Amino acid sequence: MHVNIVGAGIIGLATAFELSSRGHTVCIIDPSPGQGASHAAAGMLAPAAETVWGQGPLHQMLAASNKSYPDFVNRIQAISGQRPDYLTSSTLVVAAEPADREALHELVELQTSLGLSAQKLLPSQARNLEPALARNIAGAVLCEDDHQIDPRSVVRILLEYFQSDLVLEQCVEVIKDDKNQTTAVLTSSGTRLEAEQTILCTALGTVRGVQPAPVRPVYGDILRIQGPPGPALVTRIIRGIVHRENVYLVPRKDGSLVLGASVREDGNPQVNVGAMYNLLDNARRLVPGISDCSLNEVIARARPATADDRPLIGRIDPGLVISTGYSRHGVLLSPLGSTLTADLTEHLPASAMLKDVDPYRFPTYSSDTLLEQSS
Amino acid sequence: MHVNIVGAGIIGLATAFELSSRGHTVCIIDPSPGQGASHAAAGMLAPAAETVWGQGPLHQMLAASNKSYPDFVNRIQAISGQRPDYLTSSTLVVAAEPADREALHELVELQTSLGLSAQKLLPSQARNLEPALARNIAGAVLCEDDHQIDPRSVVRILLEYFQSDLVLEQCVEVIKDDKNQTTAVLTSSGTRLEAEQTILCTALGTVRGVQPAPVRPVYGDILRIQGPPGPALVTRIIRGIVHRENVYLVPRKDGSLVLGASVREDGNPQVNVGAMYNLLDNARRLVPGISDCSLNEVIARARPATADDRPLIGRIDPGLVISTGYSRHGVLLSPLGSTLTADLTEHLPASAMLKDVDPYRFPTYSSDTLLEQSS
Repeated sequence: MHVNIVGAGIIGLATAFELSSRGHTVCIIDPSPGQGASHAAAGMLAPAAETVWGQGPLHQMLAASNKSYPDFVNRIQAISGQRPDYLTSSTLVVAAEPADREALHELVELQTSLGLSAQKLLPSQARNLEPALARNIAGAVLCEDDHQIDPRSVVRILLEYFQSDLVLEQCVEVIKDDKNQTTAVLTSSGTRLEAEQTILCTALGTVRGVQPAPVRPVYGDILRIQGPPGPALVTRIIRGIVHRENVYLVPRKDGSLVLGASVREDGNPQVNVGAMYNLLDNARRLVPGISDCSLNEVIARARPATADDRPLIGRIDPGLVISTGYSRHGVLLSPLGSTLTADLTEHLPASAMLKDVDPYRFPTYSSDTLLEQSS
Repeated sequence: MHVNIVGAGIIGLATAFELSSRGHTVCIIDPSPGQGASHAAAGMLAPAAETVWGQGPLHQMLAASNKSYPDFVNRIQAISGQRPDYLTSSTLVVAAEPADREALHELVELQTSLGLSAQKLLPSQARNLEPALARNIAGAVLCEDDHQIDPRSVVRILLEYFQSDLVLEQCVEVIKDDKNQTTAVLTSSGTRLEAEQTILCTALGTVRGVQPAPVRPVYGDILRIQGPPGPALVTRIIRGIVHRENVYLVPRKDGSLVLGASVREDGNPQVNVGAMYNLLDNARRLVPGISDCSLNEVIARARPATADDRPLIGRIDPGLVISTGYSRHGVLLSPLGSTLTADLTEHLPASAMLKDVDPYRFPTYSSDTLLEQSS
């Protein structure tokens, strides 16, 4: 079958890849492919290090998607001939102050209760692993199954792979037949693109004819810095807790580091000076050597967040599926999210997980609302 | 006469403007006009606020050039039809900690001894003028004659004005006749550009056939931030002394602020993370509200510095003049430097000031050295 995929972020592209692998043809519509949250994301695949209380079924989804990452990467490589930058470098969660150790203890307790790999380390043991850590850290936890991918490498490879299936335009409207079934989309140039199925992977974007998804923008500021020549400053992800605030440093193969990320709900899409300062301040507390780095880039992007941090994957009409609201977990959930979305698109028997990501779990989101709006 | 001007920073362009005003024709050679230090500079015209002990004759030069700025700006406007962004907003020097007050006292003492305008203020008086200042500042000095220009506006206007006189190529060599007099320059494309006089305004750049000027790169990191909508965060230049370190905030007409500048001699042309952090840290100490700003830009550039901070303006051979080494004062010294350089180029009677900027004041720089090199 032929499928329209609106949105060429990592979710849209992974979904296109999944459907294409299953023998379908795709048309991917995006005026600025890969320039949204995927362009900012650090690509931490850290279900253990980033776990928090009260996420319910999200834990299982994150762990399951993390497990399928090696296969996801291998399949991309097998089909495209290029391997995304996936590093199984593990993650060290580091508490800065004695008061931050409490958060570390809570984290380990939660990780253990969820069966996630987590190993408490003394500060000296942590500094043995990562000598660039500050001497006065308070404690650390090694998460051996928490790795990383460079989302830009996934996006770049898949955009090349789908080069001839890409329409560099805004999708402005979904077009329905008299049975209220989506049959096509309309682009900003007035082009009508027919498809048996249409999938909206539009993050925070809206499309005429479809009720806006219950997502809100949660902005993140993120820095990319370059270590001085010589040995890498750190060799694994450093996930820090500094005065109860979070910060991370993700070392790339090329000696660069991704330093992130703020969490802002102030509606400002520009990089915030205070948030950037805070990231630098907290990162310096843990790894003083970042002061010797050069700045490559500072950007801000909006994460499409939901009230419970779980994505919204569901069928809107017999021809229309949505897949958005991945909150902070878009990169990690790409393999699982694209599989669930492809299953739904193919009308395969529903996975048990689909009920946890059903967009209709939010009472404000309903077919009725849409009908009321369009009446 | 026809003059080659190598280098289209603010010095080269101001010199071209001066010579053009005197009826000469110019050819300006630069592969990236206005992209050097002029692109980074905040444009503080602050001979009083930035004065330091031991600069000798530089004080008089800075004060004289500052006095001629209104005329410089008016002349640019009269001839080009566009007015550079010159703001006579004054400057407030602010000491953060009680220990920084000492530096403030020294500054006022020096300013008074030099006859510069400087008025001591209590913290409460300073906060009356600039309510965004932190409550716990230790003291302030108002410098009523210290203003600002946006160097990018000068560069933009003069580049437009000289559009048809611009050669967007690297000058690779000066060409001399059999009397060792420069008669032309050679560009990267092999073009030979003849001129009666050639002026090198090449900052740190070198040109074959001319002894490199005794300048060294002093890097500066500088941020451009955007205030939140509404009244401007600050209305005059804030020149801060924080833990004996310097920082400044220069408010532009459009609500943006220039936050600078580090002083690095580490040979790294990239933005340094530690220096950027330090600027933010010190600026936040004085004006906490910068945390609410958005980041527009962070760049680093090299200042062409000399051992005594005074520029190098002098005649190298009967057809060749150099004008470089303006250190931290290129923007402020543009009117004076371009006048002195034009006088020299026209073989006018030497101003008394020329001996203070003579490149041969440095023993390592001499005609002999050049002859030895080329023999």
